[in-house]
Amino acid sequence: MTYSCCNSVGECFFDYYTSKILVIRSRKVGTLNRFTQALVIAYVVGYVCVLKKGYQDTDTVLSSVTTKVKGIALTNTTELGERIWDVADYIIPPQEDGSFFVLTNMIITPNQTQSKCAEVSHYGRHSVQTGRCVNYNDTVKTCEVLSWCPLEKIVEPPNPPLLADAENFTVLIKNNIRYPKFNFNKRNILPNINSSYLTQCVFSRKTDPDCPIFRLKDIVEEAEEDFQTMAVHGGVMGVQIRWDCDLDMPQSWCVPRYTFRRLDNKDPENNVAPGYNFRFAKYYKDSDGTETRTLIKGYGIRFDVLVFGQAGKFNIIPTLLNIGAGLALLGLVNVICDWIVLTIMTRKHHYKEQKYTYVDDFGLVSI
Amino acid sequence: MTYSCCNSVGECFFDYYTSKILVIRSRKVGTLNRFTQALVIAYVVGYVCVLKKGYQDTDTVLSSVTTKVKGIALTNTTELGERIWDVADYIIPPQEDGSFFVLTNMIITPNQTQSKCAEVSHYGRHSVQTGRCVNYNDTVKTCEVLSWCPLEKIVEPPNPPLLADAENFTVLIKNNIRYPKFNFNKRNILPNINSSYLTQCVFSRKTDPDCPIFRLKDIVEEAEEDFQTMAVHGGVMGVQIRWDCDLDMPQSWCVPRYTFRRLDNKDPENNVAPGYNFRFAKYYKDSDGTETRTLIKGYGIRFDVLVFGQAGKFNIIPTLLNIGAGLALLGLVNVICDWIVLTIMTRKHHYKEQKYTYVDDFGLVSI
Amino acid sequence: MTYSCCNSVGECFFDYYTSKILVIRSRKVGTLNRFTQALVIAYVVGYVCVLKKGYQDTDTVLSSVTTKVKGIALTNTTELGERIWDVADYIIPPQEDGSFFVLTNMIITPNQTQSKCAEVSHYGRHSVQTGRCVNYNDTVKTCEVLSWCPLEKIVEPPNPPLLADAENFTVLIKNNIRYPKFNFNKRNILPNINSSYLTQCVFSRKTDPDCPIFRLKDIVEEAEEDFQTMAVHGGVMGVQIRWDCDLDMPQSWCVPRYTFRRLDNKDPENNVAPGYNFRFAKYYKDSDGTETRTLIKGYGIRFDVLVFGQAGKFNIIPTLLNIGAGLALLGLVNVICDWIVLTIMTRKHHYKEQKYTYVDDFGLVSI
Repeated sequence: MTYSCCNSVGECFFDYYTSKILVIRSRKVGTLNRFTQALVIAYVVGYVCVLKKGYQDTDTVLSSVTTKVKGIALTNTTELGERIWDVADYIIPPQEDGSFFVLTNMIITPNQTQSKCAEVSHYGRHSVQTGRCVNYNDTVKTCEVLSWCPLEKIVEPPNPPLLADAENFTVLIKNNIRYPKFNFNKRNILPNINSSYLTQCVFSRKTDPDCPIFRLKDIVEEAEEDFQTMAVHGGVMGVQIRWDCDLDMPQSWCVPRYTFRRLDNKDPENNVAPGYNFRFAKYYKDSDGTETRTLIKGYGIRFDVLVFGQAGKFNIIPTLLNIGAGLALLGLVNVICDWIVLTIMTRKHHYKEQKYTYVDDFGLVSI
Repeated sequence: MTYSCCNSVGECFFDYYTSKILVIRSRKVGTLNRFTQALVIAYVVGYVCVLKKGYQDTDTVLSSVTTKVKGIALTNTTELGERIWDVADYIIPPQEDGSFFVLTNMIITPNQTQSKCAEVSHYGRHSVQTGRCVNYNDTVKTCEVLSWCPLEKIVEPPNPPLLADAENFTVLIKNNIRYPKFNFNKRNILPNINSSYLTQCVFSRKTDPDCPIFRLKDIVEEAEEDFQTMAVHGGVMGVQIRWDCDLDMPQSWCVPRYTFRRLDNKDPENNVAPGYNFRFAKYYKDSDGTETRTLIKGYGIRFDVLVFGQAGKFNIIPTLLNIGAGLALLGLVNVICDWIVLTIMTRKHHYKEQKYTYVDDFGLVSI
Repeated sequence: MTYSCCNSVGECFFDYYTSKILVIRSRKVGTLNRFTQALVIAYVVGYVCVLKKGYQDTDTVLSSVTTKVKGIALTNTTELGERIWDVADYIIPPQEDGSFFVLTNMIITPNQTQSKCAEVSHYGRHSVQTGRCVNYNDTVKTCEVLSWCPLEKIVEPPNPPLLADAENFTVLIKNNIRYPKFNFNKRNILPNINSSYLTQCVFSRKTDPDCPIFRLKDIVEEAEEDFQTMAVHGGVMGVQIRWDCDLDMPQSWCVPRYTFRRLDNKDPENNVAPGYNFRFAKYYKDSDGTETRTLIKGYGIRFDVLVFGQAGKFNIIPTLLNIGAGLALLGLVNVICDWIVLTIMTRKHHYKEQKYTYVDDFGLVSI
């Protein structure tokens, strides 16, 4: 017992340790063993690597969007008479980032001035009561309020909507994306598109899937909504641009995919203030300097451009992570097979003898 | 020595290789061994899987927000006299995406025209000097400037703020989220909420945690700020909506959690232009066609709705990744135990003999 | 064969299983073995842990941005005469979230009224034809249209741009970020900056890299564009703020890095409506109450503030994931070495004998 591991450190350091193996010549176990191994390998290679691209590092998209709406509408109302609406009239505010609002319907209250008038019943919260009581009309008396008078009438918005023509407006959506981690930039106006095509194309899933110019009606209908109905009370549409890119592939394969979805809740249940509207005013001054305003309760469709997506590119870390995990799983296979060999098979004792050597604190265990 | 592994490939292929094991019957090592194994398993199962949901794939939220503010304010100033402010007056711009600004205070400079006037000292950068020198008042002479005259006075904003009533304004926040990877959509107006409730509820962490209508004062106070103080110079509030969803659970468990935080820096140190304000103007034309404007330096609170969160759903890849890593760690246990057995324990040589067989290039090493 | 694993469960439970090892005293294999092990360890420790911070959990940034532009411009046009432009005039809309638009050039069409006039040829889509035919000028007759008359002239925007002075405007960008997962907040106005410095500093990559006040010309030039050229037709600039933070390090190391990039496509090929412009109007009422408007086709530069970045902080799960994977890879080393020992080396049979024991269903295989 005078033997010691290392006669010299170097010697010991370069020893190669390999475990002693018992080879069991049994079809049953062998087959099982290979089969389970095959399964694991198939999973790691086939599913993780090929399908799920486990070898890729991923990044999420960074995006900038500009929009330009085109079209005119003709309305004919008692307040305004025959009137043309162009972009400057129906886009509010005139420019936004990644979103635009198209006015489709409205309730107009012209010539409001700061003054006192008879309040419309149950309307108190929109004005301040002076305490006096005045004629609302010949029959009814109501409290007098200090407010922008005349008060806005409480009516349903016109149906059909005033700017019904809005369904034919078109919008050009310019989207510029970036995957910072991979320093990859791309635009939704693809290189293969030339300006002459852009001047006349309109997006169509079948014929023009790459054209970045959309007819508002098409957007709404792809979301299975009816434009005219939606235009009455307004609403919010999501223009979803998905950029899923495999940057190990040619860049030309990385293209935007457009989908459309209604974002607001139209179902009258659990909903308040359905549709989408807001109030804004145009301010004027008369010759005598008193300020008047035209109050407009504008109903319309807001289009939110939602850009999302994920880019993947080969990276050594996730690759080895998955391989490592796969190997560990391969280790499991042996555990299973051992268990079978040593507990189920008829000749288990026979194998045990060969596999195990027993030793306790007092020496070899006699068998 | 004529023996070769494979008499036939098939035969060899179905050999089952299992390592020969030395079983050490020692309470000390055995206990240690089982204990460390238990630790590792506890970590993998308990911490990684149960606590950290290591078996889930995750996705980040995609969101769309609309807001609608309600309320009126009464002001009484020398410039404007008694005046009512409604939504159309104090929300600028009238509609925004995921953010809204409420005017709470202002410095008004009415009837400005493009003309020449005596500049206010140290104010040059806001106008162009004509080179002439004119009376600023009876005593002082200053340079004449070409600008919108009269120039805006350099004064502190009114305190208390003009629209002090703004604290009672309410805002309805509609938030629609989507987890693209799991194709999961949800709104912050939960199914269990009906419209009658929505018409009168106001958010309160205790009594109405699901009501999407917020009183501005409550928002500011939850962020431990004083509304009236903040209203004077303005500021930026963050309305944070967190959507953390475990999609392996019932969807009804996936609810928004609201928190409020002041985003701008109020501390006067390392800060420039504290608060939040911007200038805008209303443009008029007199009867003689000359353009005049009312310049308003508007102070107010901008509310940014910040939506974030993460959804998790069972996925086989992260699961096996973690299991694989766990198994690899189990391997470590053996390394440790071996080290103890063969270096610390009194009978280490006794064990070594059994565990190791030495062979060098010239045959078995005699022991 | 009467021996059974467990005389008593407890006894068996505390058996310690360790594999029997064959130690091969061969420099060749030993060296190879250690070398490959070194490689793997170097990769795991050096690359995964140190370089790629594999031990960190990551979170993406949540951000809020406010901007404040300063500066005035002097223009001298036939329509408007000498005129001063200040913030209230050239920022449209007056406040936005994370983005601002600076008007640099425009085509003005004053005194438009809803009426009938002779259309400009090929301009039909912007108005509605009445069907009558009228004099466009002495020589040409065109269709009469109902529209805002006089119609906007179809001309190129002025060159040089009207608001050429815009290049000297400065913008203060306040950015407040949050990493929700780590509950970490920070502002781009760093603690070491005092307000006196902020009142006069201007960003410069060399001298003032931390100053949050940017000269518009500098922004554009850092993106290798010419401001005056860009100002004519407008465009979109990206102000990218990158917050990459290692939260295991002192917080003061977590600072924003500014870069600038042109987001829109200036190349005339595959491009429609190059540059960036939109139409907006100012509405007036004459003494007789008829509405007139001044239509402005505004060209300008929109600045999108794009905030991104990733924070990392030590977390046990990714750490053990990577260690686990590393260990599994170490296992690979043995597989390789075994293969070499047993198939390449001259004395392979000699080793095989020692490593393998063969047993089949009928007992030990005689060698």
